[in-house]
Amino acid sequence: MTTTLAVHYTAARTLTAGAASSAAPGPGEVELAPAYVGICGTDLHIFHGDMDARVKAPAVIGHEMSGRVVRLGPGVEGFAPGDPVTVMPLRWDGTCPACRRGNSHVCQNLDFIGIDSPGAMQQRWTVPAATLVRLPESLPLDRAALVEPTAVAVHDVGRAGVREGERVVVVGGGPVGVLIALVAQAAGGDVRVVEPSPHRRRVAGELGLSTWDPAAVDVSELVEDWTDGAGAEVAFEVSGAEAGVRTAVDSLAVRGRLCLVAIHPRPREVNLHRFFWRELTLIGARLYDRADFETAVRLIAEDTIPAEQLISKVVPLAEAPSAFEALEGGGDVMKVLLDCAAGTGEGAA
Amino acid sequence: MTTTLAVHYTAARTLTAGAASSAAPGPGEVELAPAYVGICGTDLHIFHGDMDARVKAPAVIGHEMSGRVVRLGPGVEGFAPGDPVTVMPLRWDGTCPACRRGNSHVCQNLDFIGIDSPGAMQQRWTVPAATLVRLPESLPLDRAALVEPTAVAVHDVGRAGVREGERVVVVGGGPVGVLIALVAQAAGGDVRVVEPSPHRRRVAGELGLSTWDPAAVDVSELVEDWTDGAGAEVAFEVSGAEAGVRTAVDSLAVRGRLCLVAIHPRPREVNLHRFFWRELTLIGARLYDRADFETAVRLIAEDTIPAEQLISKVVPLAEAPSAFEALEGGGDVMKVLLDCAAGTGEGAA
Repeated sequence: MTTTLAVHYTAARTLTAGAASSAAPGPGEVELAPAYVGICGTDLHIFHGDMDARVKAPAVIGHEMSGRVVRLGPGVEGFAPGDPVTVMPLRWDGTCPACRRGNSHVCQNLDFIGIDSPGAMQQRWTVPAATLVRLPESLPLDRAALVEPTAVAVHDVGRAGVREGERVVVVGGGPVGVLIALVAQAAGGDVRVVEPSPHRRRVAGELGLSTWDPAAVDVSELVEDWTDGAGAEVAFEVSGAEAGVRTAVDSLAVRGRLCLVAIHPRPREVNLHRFFWRELTLIGARLYDRADFETAVRLIAEDTIPAEQLISKVVPLAEAPSAFEALEGGGDVMKVLLDCAAGTGEGAA
Repeated sequence: MTTTLAVHYTAARTLTAGAASSAAPGPGEVELAPAYVGICGTDLHIFHGDMDARVKAPAVIGHEMSGRVVRLGPGVEGFAPGDPVTVMPLRWDGTCPACRRGNSHVCQNLDFIGIDSPGAMQQRWTVPAATLVRLPESLPLDRAALVEPTAVAVHDVGRAGVREGERVVVVGGGPVGVLIALVAQAAGGDVRVVEPSPHRRRVAGELGLSTWDPAAVDVSELVEDWTDGAGAEVAFEVSGAEAGVRTAVDSLAVRGRLCLVAIHPRPREVNLHRFFWRELTLIGARLYDRADFETAVRLIAEDTIPAEQLISKVVPLAEAPSAFEALEGGGDVMKVLLDCAAGTGEGAA
């Protein structure tokens, strides 16, 4: 037993940093030392108490991470202590109808590690060896903490099938929206990001992306001009707002594809007539598979995704409670990372 | 000039049968003698006055038809008087962005003949030669009047990509719903039709289709049982009702495809979360192209689509006004045809 630091979600709006003990990994498991853990929108939903039906307090959350292997459980091969890794935080049952059709990433009984089972906001984390994704030694671990959200973007751009020269509207310029924009651009798309926050537009602009402020301009009109009356071939809905759905639908050309990325907890009014009239397609996209993760590692390692510029702030793991409170108010941030080794002298990277 | 009978839409709820004169067809045009004209849901919308923005009264409507060539305009080749034909009632501009991408059937300036320009509910009808689709001599012309709605179904099933062995839920068992069900079955689909009207369920049943009454059963539960918890691979929304959208979305398996066929004049509340969660796809489908028309002719000619059984009633063209009034109340009908030769001694078939 090692005693280390862990952050627990104990009730709505309450995180507690405290000591935790870590047992030796079981068969097929690996114990990791998380280096950096990103705070995701989903983590904030959990913090708000919106996901108490799935998250059984006290719970360690967190699923965007990088770290190193500490100990291998019995039967685990191919990894050694010290190896840099990230985790694809999915455990599927392999037997449900979705798994049998090869869609195990959206298994009907999916265990999403970090929501449905213990997550990465701790100094020792035990996960199934099958979830590990190897990182290049040369990739700094702070950047590697962005592999998971980048894998989301890779999956989304793949679902939308963005091709060279296509016009792409990304509605919502938070971390996932910006990552989608960058991945779509790498796929040859000509991209515009629609985002009301000046801070987020500035970050996107610094990354070389063109942005539109939907409060200041008529997006439909700009799309008309930009595409000579055709409309965009692809749109991504990453805002989670009904107005965002409207903007995306109104932007699309005949036979355009709308990739739905955001979570809409309530049903939304959708202009189905336009789907009929223009023969549009709506494509739901959720999570990722291993190939998406491997592509994400490559895109970050080769700096196609300048992950460093997306990191707004790094705070010690012990300060997670105040970091969540600060993020609740929104604020001018993209991605905040928790540094799990800060103050321990372990030195993660 | 020949004086013949034509039915004019003159104002909401008013059709007038009266004499019309027909000029010689111009260059590239063909004069037809319509034999049978089907009354479509769109014709009823026009009759209600809902489409006055597009239909400029007095107007001859009607776009589901069969007939014979009467006269060829200058420069028309490949057809001779007496040839049996149907019409693909679309005229596109060829220059808009949709046309330039090969989607001329949904041209951004489409002229839908029978709505935007004069239709088939008359004894002489002049159309562009390019709209003609040849019919086999052996195909009775009453059945051939169902080629146009069958082409819609062929297009829809093609858009959904129905494959052998897939489970297919068709929400709405009117003429188009039943045709979709039959075409999907011919493509190898295992089909269920969801339809509240006992008459329509009976007609579908007589055609060998399995039906469910959504007022009497829980469709989601039946789909669960039928598919061993997987859900259906494909659903078609043909009802035009918000509840129909819900039924279709709730029926679908992970990665299921929902083909949107019905017209929803108002935005609808859609469970976008399920699109995200199950990675569903929504596919808008409108009209058809020439290949769809040719497939429809073949399916009816070889009796894969038993068109005869879908014809509820044939009434003389002159009685169109009372036929529309009768249809307004709904009633136990599938397809009503107008017989354009009745009482003229012309004998269309």
